[in-house]
Amino acid sequence: MLSISQYQDIISEHFANLSLAKEPKNLYEPISYILSLGGKRMRPVLTLMAAEVFNSNCKKALAAATAVEVFHNFSLVHDDIMDDAPLRRGNETVHEKWNVNTGILSGDAMLILAYQHFEQYEPAIFRDLAKLFSKTALEVCEGQQWDVDFEQRDDVTIPEYLKMIEYKTAVLVGAAMKMGAIVAETSEENADLIYDFGLNLGIAFQLQDDYLDAFGDPETFGKQVGGDIIENKKTYLYLKAIEFSGPDEKEQLLHLFSIQPTDNKDKISSIKELFNTTGASEATQQAIKEYTFKSFETLEKMNIGQDKKDILRSFGENLMMRNV
Amino acid sequence: MLSISQYQDIISEHFANLSLAKEPKNLYEPISYILSLGGKRMRPVLTLMAAEVFNSNCKKALAAATAVEVFHNFSLVHDDIMDDAPLRRGNETVHEKWNVNTGILSGDAMLILAYQHFEQYEPAIFRDLAKLFSKTALEVCEGQQWDVDFEQRDDVTIPEYLKMIEYKTAVLVGAAMKMGAIVAETSEENADLIYDFGLNLGIAFQLQDDYLDAFGDPETFGKQVGGDIIENKKTYLYLKAIEFSGPDEKEQLLHLFSIQPTDNKDKISSIKELFNTTGASEATQQAIKEYTFKSFETLEKMNIGQDKKDILRSFGENLMMRNV
Repeated sequence: MLSISQYQDIISEHFANLSLAKEPKNLYEPISYILSLGGKRMRPVLTLMAAEVFNSNCKKALAAATAVEVFHNFSLVHDDIMDDAPLRRGNETVHEKWNVNTGILSGDAMLILAYQHFEQYEPAIFRDLAKLFSKTALEVCEGQQWDVDFEQRDDVTIPEYLKMIEYKTAVLVGAAMKMGAIVAETSEENADLIYDFGLNLGIAFQLQDDYLDAFGDPETFGKQVGGDIIENKKTYLYLKAIEFSGPDEKEQLLHLFSIQPTDNKDKISSIKELFNTTGASEATQQAIKEYTFKSFETLEKMNIGQDKKDILRSFGENLMMRNV
Repeated sequence: MLSISQYQDIISEHFANLSLAKEPKNLYEPISYILSLGGKRMRPVLTLMAAEVFNSNCKKALAAATAVEVFHNFSLVHDDIMDDAPLRRGNETVHEKWNVNTGILSGDAMLILAYQHFEQYEPAIFRDLAKLFSKTALEVCEGQQWDVDFEQRDDVTIPEYLKMIEYKTAVLVGAAMKMGAIVAETSEENADLIYDFGLNLGIAFQLQDDYLDAFGDPETFGKQVGGDIIENKKTYLYLKAIEFSGPDEKEQLLHLFSIQPTDNKDKISSIKELFNTTGASEATQQAIKEYTFKSFETLEKMNIGQDKKDILRSFGENLMMRNV
């Protein structure tokens, strides 16, 4: 099997050669633009890796991997409009560089283009891929809607929050891997197991993102540390802190999560302190471990060689060891 | 074969029973809302009709017909955001009743839901339907982008305009009919011919819409007569009038299409006068006839009984005889 960076190279080369110089320019240029901003290409890498785990040539999975990455970028373009975000991967977002209408329409076209990448597979595989893709894409929309809804609510439960991150983030990780399994024509059981592996790893990853947002190393964490706190985002850390806190701590938390000071330094350090004293930090780290463990457990049930299991496990370990 | 109103009843009943009462409510309620506003359901009627023309039970085509109608409504939701339209079918648009973000996300979900309706067909038919659907949906996006681009240009040619309405409107009419043919498993030749029948009828229909916008009977034309003129829209009538006009008339037209008076009565009557004197009205009626004729010509080549050809022809004649 190839290394992560070799998979990344294959994908980068493939994206560099996608012919998107089509008319009308105002529809296709924003698509080329967002796809050229790169990123780690983690989802398509997982598709290629899964195909090889199940003994297929990873090149065979390239079209499915491309669909996953195009879809992911579609969701970024539309989410950035909804969040009114000015920047994406350090560059202007599509609706900032062009306008909202261009963002909407180019996004729509990307969702359709994603489906078209499945067309090079034979009918039975095409149908399996497109079905999984539709189910996943709809769940991502539902997750995004829950996320929007949660902003207006102060009674979000932990199970609701976990469902939201599962839909918004983790199902696409699971689906990316299962697509590799479908292309490799492995057993349904293996395909379902690698979906669960990706799903649980995706949840662990998102919980870790919540954790690192508060406690990550500013030098190595990709985003602004404390960003969620500044935006009063009710993450897993916050929900656990509320659950564990006594009346005084709870009042303090609710107050801190309602203000928007010009200088956020004191707010951030008070909240981090509360995350620690209530036990929310520890509970979050525990949850990350549990989902990672759940993910590794499914590996054991998979009908593949130990060498392949080791590769998937070490990929998971590397992913979860970032910048803690 | 059934009558148009019988097909409409089948579709209305089917849409009334679509289970869209799902969570999250803020995602699915707008979808139920826009789909419940109805309309003539012309596109899905054409899918059912085409299936019966090629000797299939129309019920077999109901899922494909639903996909076409859901897609059409997706495009309305997103177009209404882009056009900042307050009303659709006499009711509030989705982004007015909820907000722009809800319009974007519910629209995205509808595009995915449309694809899901193909899943009940066997793999080979599923693939043919989804491929045609993706191609068509992308063309509709391209047509919408051309339409947006043309607003900023004053050098749009007649062939460009025809291409725009072909993509924005006519391809979906052709595809709706071809989907019926695919479900009925008729020959590829028949399927391509009914696509051309629908495509040309769709172009004729849109040109007639341009014509009726200026010259239709206010009592029977569904929209505000003169609406395109008020918005300075460069329709086929305008482009032909520019083509045919001498220097004075051209200057007059360019002036009239640059102003936005509070009272549009004089503007509308002056422009209609110019459409007539330049010969643009006649040329438009001529073009409508030509595309209708082209559409009827493809019927003759179809390998179906004369009774079926008569039904399709009379459908086309009825469609083109509205309110002239």
